[in-house]
Amino acid sequence: MLWRDLKAWQVYGANTDVGKTIVSTILCRALQRRAPQNGLLYLKPVSTGPQSDADDGHIRKFVPGALSKCISQFSRPLSPHLAAQLDGNPSIPTSDQSIVNQVKDLLSKHSLSGGRYVLLETAGGVLSPGPSGSMQADVYRPLRLPTLLVGDSKLGGISTTLSAFESLHVRGYDLDSVILFEDPQWGNHEYLQEKFSKHDIPTYAIPKPPARQDNIQDDEAALSEYYDQASTSPSITSLIEVLQQKHFSRVSKLTSLPTQAEAVVWHPFRQHGIASNIIAIDSAYDDHFLAYNQETDAALTPPPQNPIGLTPLAAQAPAKPLLTPLFDASASWWTQGLGHGNPSVALTAAHAAGRYGHVMFAHAIHEPALNISYNLLSTLKNPRLSRTFFTDNGSTGMEVAVKMALRASCARYGWHKDDGIGSIGILGLQGSYHGDTIGVMNCSEPSVFNEKVDWYKPWGHWFEPPNLLMKDGQWELSIPQSMTEDGICSNPQIFNSLDNVFDFSARQEDAKRYESFITSTLEDLTQKQGARFGALILEPLLMGAGGMIFVDPLFQRTLITTVRAHPHLLGAEPAPSSSQESSPSQDDPLNWSGVPIIADEVFTGLYRLGRASSSSFLASSNDSVNANSTPPIPHTVAPDISVHAKLLTAGLLPLAITTASESIFSTFLSDSKTDALLHGHSYTAHPIGCMVGDKALNEYRRLDTDGTWEGYKSAWNQGSSLSSLSSASSSSSSQSPTFSFFPPSLLTRLSHHPRLTGCFALGTVLVLKLASAGSGYNSTATADVQAQLLTLLDEQGCGVHSRVLGDVIYFMTSLTTSPDQVDRLGRVILRALET
Amino acid sequence: MLWRDLKAWQVYGANTDVGKTIVSTILCRALQRRAPQNGLLYLKPVSTGPQSDADDGHIRKFVPGALSKCISQFSRPLSPHLAAQLDGNPSIPTSDQSIVNQVKDLLSKHSLSGGRYVLLETAGGVLSPGPSGSMQADVYRPLRLPTLLVGDSKLGGISTTLSAFESLHVRGYDLDSVILFEDPQWGNHEYLQEKFSKHDIPTYAIPKPPARQDNIQDDEAALSEYYDQASTSPSITSLIEVLQQKHFSRVSKLTSLPTQAEAVVWHPFRQHGIASNIIAIDSAYDDHFLAYNQETDAALTPPPQNPIGLTPLAAQAPAKPLLTPLFDASASWWTQGLGHGNPSVALTAAHAAGRYGHVMFAHAIHEPALNISYNLLSTLKNPRLSRTFFTDNGSTGMEVAVKMALRASCARYGWHKDDGIGSIGILGLQGSYHGDTIGVMNCSEPSVFNEKVDWYKPWGHWFEPPNLLMKDGQWELSIPQSMTEDGICSNPQIFNSLDNVFDFSARQEDAKRYESFITSTLEDLTQKQGARFGALILEPLLMGAGGMIFVDPLFQRTLITTVRAHPHLLGAEPAPSSSQESSPSQDDPLNWSGVPIIADEVFTGLYRLGRASSSSFLASSNDSVNANSTPPIPHTVAPDISVHAKLLTAGLLPLAITTASESIFSTFLSDSKTDALLHGHSYTAHPIGCMVGDKALNEYRRLDTDGTWEGYKSAWNQGSSLSSLSSASSSSSSQSPTFSFFPPSLLTRLSHHPRLTGCFALGTVLVLKLASAGSGYNSTATADVQAQLLTLLDEQGCGVHSRVLGDVIYFMTSLTTSPDQVDRLGRVILRALET
Repeated sequence: MLWRDLKAWQVYGANTDVGKTIVSTILCRALQRRAPQNGLLYLKPVSTGPQSDADDGHIRKFVPGALSKCISQFSRPLSPHLAAQLDGNPSIPTSDQSIVNQVKDLLSKHSLSGGRYVLLETAGGVLSPGPSGSMQADVYRPLRLPTLLVGDSKLGGISTTLSAFESLHVRGYDLDSVILFEDPQWGNHEYLQEKFSKHDIPTYAIPKPPARQDNIQDDEAALSEYYDQASTSPSITSLIEVLQQKHFSRVSKLTSLPTQAEAVVWHPFRQHGIASNIIAIDSAYDDHFLAYNQETDAALTPPPQNPIGLTPLAAQAPAKPLLTPLFDASASWWTQGLGHGNPSVALTAAHAAGRYGHVMFAHAIHEPALNISYNLLSTLKNPRLSRTFFTDNGSTGMEVAVKMALRASCARYGWHKDDGIGSIGILGLQGSYHGDTIGVMNCSEPSVFNEKVDWYKPWGHWFEPPNLLMKDGQWELSIPQSMTEDGICSNPQIFNSLDNVFDFSARQEDAKRYESFITSTLEDLTQKQGARFGALILEPLLMGAGGMIFVDPLFQRTLITTVRAHPHLLGAEPAPSSSQESSPSQDDPLNWSGVPIIADEVFTGLYRLGRASSSSFLASSNDSVNANSTPPIPHTVAPDISVHAKLLTAGLLPLAITTASESIFSTFLSDSKTDALLHGHSYTAHPIGCMVGDKALNEYRRLDTDGTWEGYKSAWNQGSSLSSLSSASSSSSSQSPTFSFFPPSLLTRLSHHPRLTGCFALGTVLVLKLASAGSGYNSTATADVQAQLLTLLDEQGCGVHSRVLGDVIYFMTSLTTSPDQVDRLGRVILRALET
Repeated sequence: MLWRDLKAWQVYGANTDVGKTIVSTILCRALQRRAPQNGLLYLKPVSTGPQSDADDGHIRKFVPGALSKCISQFSRPLSPHLAAQLDGNPSIPTSDQSIVNQVKDLLSKHSLSGGRYVLLETAGGVLSPGPSGSMQADVYRPLRLPTLLVGDSKLGGISTTLSAFESLHVRGYDLDSVILFEDPQWGNHEYLQEKFSKHDIPTYAIPKPPARQDNIQDDEAALSEYYDQASTSPSITSLIEVLQQKHFSRVSKLTSLPTQAEAVVWHPFRQHGIASNIIAIDSAYDDHFLAYNQETDAALTPPPQNPIGLTPLAAQAPAKPLLTPLFDASASWWTQGLGHGNPSVALTAAHAAGRYGHVMFAHAIHEPALNISYNLLSTLKNPRLSRTFFTDNGSTGMEVAVKMALRASCARYGWHKDDGIGSIGILGLQGSYHGDTIGVMNCSEPSVFNEKVDWYKPWGHWFEPPNLLMKDGQWELSIPQSMTEDGICSNPQIFNSLDNVFDFSARQEDAKRYESFITSTLEDLTQKQGARFGALILEPLLMGAGGMIFVDPLFQRTLITTVRAHPHLLGAEPAPSSSQESSPSQDDPLNWSGVPIIADEVFTGLYRLGRASSSSFLASSNDSVNANSTPPIPHTVAPDISVHAKLLTAGLLPLAITTASESIFSTFLSDSKTDALLHGHSYTAHPIGCMVGDKALNEYRRLDTDGTWEGYKSAWNQGSSLSSLSSASSSSSSQSPTFSFFPPSLLTRLSHHPRLTGCFALGTVLVLKLASAGSGYNSTATADVQAQLLTLLDEQGCGVHSRVLGDVIYFMTSLTTSPDQVDRLGRVILRALET
C-alpha cells in the first residue's frame, strides 16, 4: 500500500513491553503537528486487555486532533490468539483476511478524505500471534507497509532487537528506523546504531518516560509534558524528516523504475522497437504482484504543464494508491506453486544459504542434493528412472537430455557423427518447444522462436499432432490434414467428455489408425530418405510455448509404443548379432527400445496439470492393476528420460533436474574419463535450490493427498458424469482422468462464447483461443483482452496480469490458489470478454 | 565438529534471563548420569559478572563428576563486548578466532580422553555480542554444533523465541530442541510446540525453579532437589533420548551420503565407471568446507570382520572427528568471493525471497534487477556497454552473446544462413571454452569436452595463442610454432617481470609481428577459403576450463585492434554504399567494427584476476590519460559484449548477465516482434540473484578501493621492481599492472620446483603446471598432489580441496581470504609437492 501523499508506517516491537505505545504516541504527536485536523490516523488493529487501558484511548487522550481506531478489541490481557479464543465473540474480526481487509479499507478512506499520515501499531512482538494464531508479521505482510521497530533497551535487548529485525527482513519488509529508550548502562543504542547503519537504517534513542505517579492527574500531566518534549526533540524531528525522505524516495524510485529500465535493460522476448507498458513490480505476495502501472498512473496525474490546474480527476490522483494488486496469471512464466513471498520457503532458502552458500558438486555430495534426488524420483513414480543430473533451467536440462539420448542411440546402433550421413535427428511434434539455447532449438521445427537464430538448424521430423479444444460444450479433436488425406481418419471427432478422450480401450480403432500413420511416415523417412533418429521428445499432454496445444494423449501414447516396438523404423541397420550393445536384453523391460524417449515435463510436470508426472496421462486405466490414487506409470509408456524445472523450486530460483534410466546412464560408463557426460554448470546442484525444491516436492505431495484439491476434483467428476450420459465408456473408474482448478461450469460457459474459437482447462491451466484476423505468434487479437484484465478490478480491487501466446490467452493458478480466488478470476475473465 | 561417540550441543537463549543456566544444569545432570566420571564437559566460553556467580561454578556445585570450564571471564555483569572493553585484560581471549580455537581444542581433547558429552552454554541471547562485538551466533558458526534453544515462557516470549530460532536458522544451524519453563498463563509452550513441530523440532516444557530463599543453604538444597527431580523427569528423559537419536541419525546420514549418492546421482564431469572418492560436504563456512572423507574414515575404522580386534589406530577412530575443514581451493568451480555461509548474504537472499519470491520479468521491472544492471555497468567501466540481458549461467549468457553478435554481423553484411555458403563462424583462441550447451560448444575448437557430443560442430577458426609461464624465476612467453615457422618470432621470449610483458609500448615490434600473422591468416581464411566470421570471442588474459592458459595480453589486444581496423578481413563483401547498416558511422567510435567482440569474462571478470573487468588488462598504460586507480577501459580494446556470472552472485546461486553495446542492441530494433531477441528463461532476473548480486558488487568494489588488498598489491609492486632492475621499461607507473593474493616470493619458489614445468599467479588464482608423462585432460599426474592436499593438514587441522585440469593444478582464494590463510595454503602446497 503506497500513496503519493498519504504516508503510513507500521510500528513493531522487538518484544512486548518495550514501549511501543509510548513511541507511537510521541510519533503521533510529532506527525499531528505536521497534519491538518484529522489528518493523522492511529490504528491499533488488534488490542487485548480492558478497553479502558486500550492504546487507541491513550492516543485520543494525548494526541488531540488525531483519529484513533481499533478493529479487534479483546477483553483479556493475553496474547491475541488466546484472548480471541476466550472471548469467543463472533462479531469481532479474527481472521487474517478480515483484519487486513479492514485495515486496507480504513487506509483507503483516510487517503480519500485527504489524510496525510497513518501509524499502525501492532500488538506484542514481531512474531506474536494474531487473533487467528498466525504470526503478526505474516498477517500484515500483504500490506507490506514500511515498518518502524521499537527496540529493547534492556539487558539482552540487543539480541531480541536484531532477531526481530531479521524476522521482518526475511518477510520482505522495509525497516525505516529503529527507536529505543536511552539506557546508557547496557549500551544497546550504540551497538544497534552501528549494526543497523550497515543496512542504512537509522537508529534513534529517546529519553525514558517519567516514572509512574500515584496520582492519576499528576501522572497524566507528567506524561503529557514528556510527550511534548520528546515529540519536539531534535532526534524525533530528525526521525520524522528521515521518514518523509524515505517515503518520497520510495515513491520516486518506484515511479521511475519503468523509465530507468528503458535505458539499460534488454528485456527477454521483447521488441524494444515497439513501445510497451512496463509494469513495475514492487513486491509480491501469494498469487499477487503489488505493481505500479505507469499508464493508469499517467492517466490520473495531470501533466505538469497543464495550465488549467487540477481537474476533478487529477485532484483524486494523489489519493489513489500507486500500487495495485495484480493476479499473476502466467504464474510468472509458469513457475509458481506455493505463492510469492512465501515466508516458509524464504526461511528454507536462507537456511541453505547460511549452512552452505554454494558448495562444489563435482565428486562431492551434500544432503539437500541427495534429498531432492530421492524425493523427485519417488514423486514421479516412473519405474524407469533412477538417476538425477542437475542443471540450471529447462533449456539446459533438455540439452543434457539430448546429449544423453543421442549418445545412447549412437552407441547402440554404431552411428558416428562423422560418417558423412548427416546429423542424427529428433522425432517430435509440431508446436513443440524445448528452450532457448541453440542445441535444443534444433530439436524443434522452424518457428517464430528460432528461425532468426543464425545457427539454428532443425534436425529431425515433427509430426503434426491431433489436438483437442472444447467448443460449444463439446470436445473437438482436430485431425491434421496429413492424416485425413488418405481417408482413414474423419475430422474433427467429437467427444462428450474428456473421460471418453482418455478411454483408450474404447479408442482402439483410433490407435490403430495412428500407428499405421506413424509407421508409414517413419518408413518413408528412414527407409526411403535415409534419415536416422536418436530420440523421441514429447511434452506430455500439453505443448506450452508453442501455443498451448492440448495434444490427443492417445497419439502421444501410440507414438511411444510404436517407436518402442519397431526399432528398425528409426533408421538403424539390422543389428550385428555380435554386438551386445545393439541387442538390448529382451528380458529387461526397462531397457530403452527403439530410441530413448524424452519427456519434456519442464512446464507440464510437478502438478502443473494436476499430476506429479504428465507422462502418467498417457497410461490407460487398464495399464495398471493398482487402484490407489497415484499408481506408478506403466513402463510401456514411461519415458526413459524426463526433465523438470519451473515448479521444481517452489517458484523461487533456477534449478533443473534431468532424470534418466539406468540403461541410459550405463551408456556413459567406461574406463575413460572422456566418455563421461562432460557437462556441469558452476552452480550445479546449488544447496538453496535443492533444499527449497525438496521442501516444495513435500508440499506438493501433501496437497495432492490431503484432500486440499477435493473440491476441484469432485466438480470435474460430477461434470464429466453429467456430460457423459451418452458415453458407452468401458471405464469403470469413478475418478476422472483429469481435473482442473477452473470449474467445468466456467469452461462450458466460455466454450459457448462468441469471441472464442475454443478453450480447455487442465490442472492449474486455463486456455482460451480467441477468434481473430492475425494468427500465431504475430496475432495481436489477445492484446485487447490482456489490457482489459490489467485494469478491470475485481471486488477486492485486484487486476489480472496475464500473458498471451499469439491468439491464445491463458491463466494459471498456483497449487494453493483458493476456490474463492478462482471464482473471482473467472468472473473477471468473463467481464473482460464482454467489454 | 562431529564425532561418532562424543556428542556436543550448544545452548542458546531466546533472550537473557530465560533460564539458560538452569536448563543447562538440568541437562548436565541428566547427561552426567549417562556418562563416566569426567565424561561430561560443560563449557561456558564467555561469562560476565563476578567469578563467584559464574555459571561454570554453578555446574561444579550441582553436577558432581562433570568437568566445567570457562574460557573468557569478565568481571562486570554487562554485555561481553562492554565487559571485555572495560576489563581491558589482554590475557583474556576476546577475538572470535581465539575463542573458537580454544573451544575446538577443548572439544578435541575431551573426545581424545574418552569424553562422551559436551554442553556449551552461550551468554545472553542468540545475537548478543561476544567480547569482540561480533554476534554470538556468528562467532560460533564455524563449529556449527547442533543447538538447543531455551525459550522464553513469559508474555511476549512466543515472538522472541521464534525470532531467535529464525536467527539461528538463517545462519545454517540445526536446532535440535526448544526447552522452556511451564507457564500455562501465557500458553507459550502449546503455541511454540505446534509451530516448531512443523520444523520437526520437539518442544519441552519443564517446571519452573523454586523461588529463591533467603538462607543460602536452604536455597541450594531446594535447587538441588529441583535439579534432581527435573533431570529425571519423563520430559527430560525423552529429550535426552531424542538428542541421542538425532546425533546418531546425523552421523549415519552423513557417513552414508557418499554411498547413497552412488545409487542415484549422475555427477557432472565424472566417469562413473571409475571408482572415485566422493566427499560429503556437511556445511561450509568462509573459505572452508566441513567435509566427511569416507576414505580417511575407512582407513581409521577397522572393518567389522577384523578378527584381531581393535588396533591402536582403530581405537582412536571414534575419537577422531568425522568432519575435516577443507580449504575450497577451486572456489567451488570459481564461484566464491565473499565466503561460504556468509550470514549477510543469506539474509539478503531471504529478504528478496520474502519480498518477491520470483516475479515475472517479461515486460516488467523490479528494483533488484534495475539496481544490479546499473551497478554492473558502472563497475565494468567499459564505455561501450549500455544494456543488460539476464540469463542463468555462463553458458546461457554466452549463447545470448553469440546470438547477439551473429545477428549484428549478418544484418550489417547482408549474410543469410540459407545462402548456401555455410554457417557464419567464430574467431577465437585454441584452448578457449565457453560453456556446456551445444551452441557455445560450437564456439570452441574440438577438444575433450565437446568431441563426443553428437551434435557438436565447430564453426570458426581458432588461433593458437602465445602464452606465459614463470619458470626458474623468469617469465617465459611461448610462441606457437605457426608463428615461428616463418622466422619472424623467436621462441621462447623471456621477460624479467610481468610489468615488461604488459609494457605494450616497449613491445611495438611484437605487436607488428602479431598483426601481420593475424592479417595473413585471416586473408587466407576469408579470401582464399571463403570463410565468413561473425564474432571474435576471447577470455581476456586467462583461459580457464581449457587448461588455465595465461595468454599474452598483447596478442589478444592486437587481435581486437586488427579485426576492428580491417572489416574486410572477416569475409564481408565490400559494403554497398546504399546500405546504411553496412557502413557504420565513422564518427561513432562506440559502434562495433569488423565483428562484434565478445569478452567471456564468466571466469576472469569481477575481480577474479584482481580487476572488475579482465578486458582492462588489454589496455596499455598509455591508452588512458586518467591516473586514478581504475580508469575506464579505452574503447579501442573494450569489448562490444561481455558476459558475467560465477562471482556475480556472491557465490550463492545461478545468474548471468550478458552486457551489450547500444550498437548491438539496436540491431534487434524493428516494428516486428519476430526480430526481437527471443530468449528468456523462466527465472530470468530472479530477484534473489539480482539483490544478492547487487550487494556482492558493492562489496567487491569496497574491497577494491578501501585498502583491503594493499598488502597483496605492495608485495607485487616490490616484487616487480626488484626483479625488473634490468628492465628498460618506459612505464613510469609505480603500480604494477597485475597483482595476486599469492605472494611473488611463493611464486618464485614454486617456479624453481623440479616437479613443475611452470606456474603463474593472477589475482586470486595460482596455477601450477606439473611435469608428467600423460598430457592434457587425460593426464593423471596431478592426482597425487590433489590426494596429498586432501589429507596433509595444516597447523589448524585444515586440508585442501583442489581441482585439477589435466597437468594443471590450481588454487583460488575468495576476495576476502586473509594473508594468514594464503600463507598456510602456500606452505601446504610446498609440503604436498615434497611428498
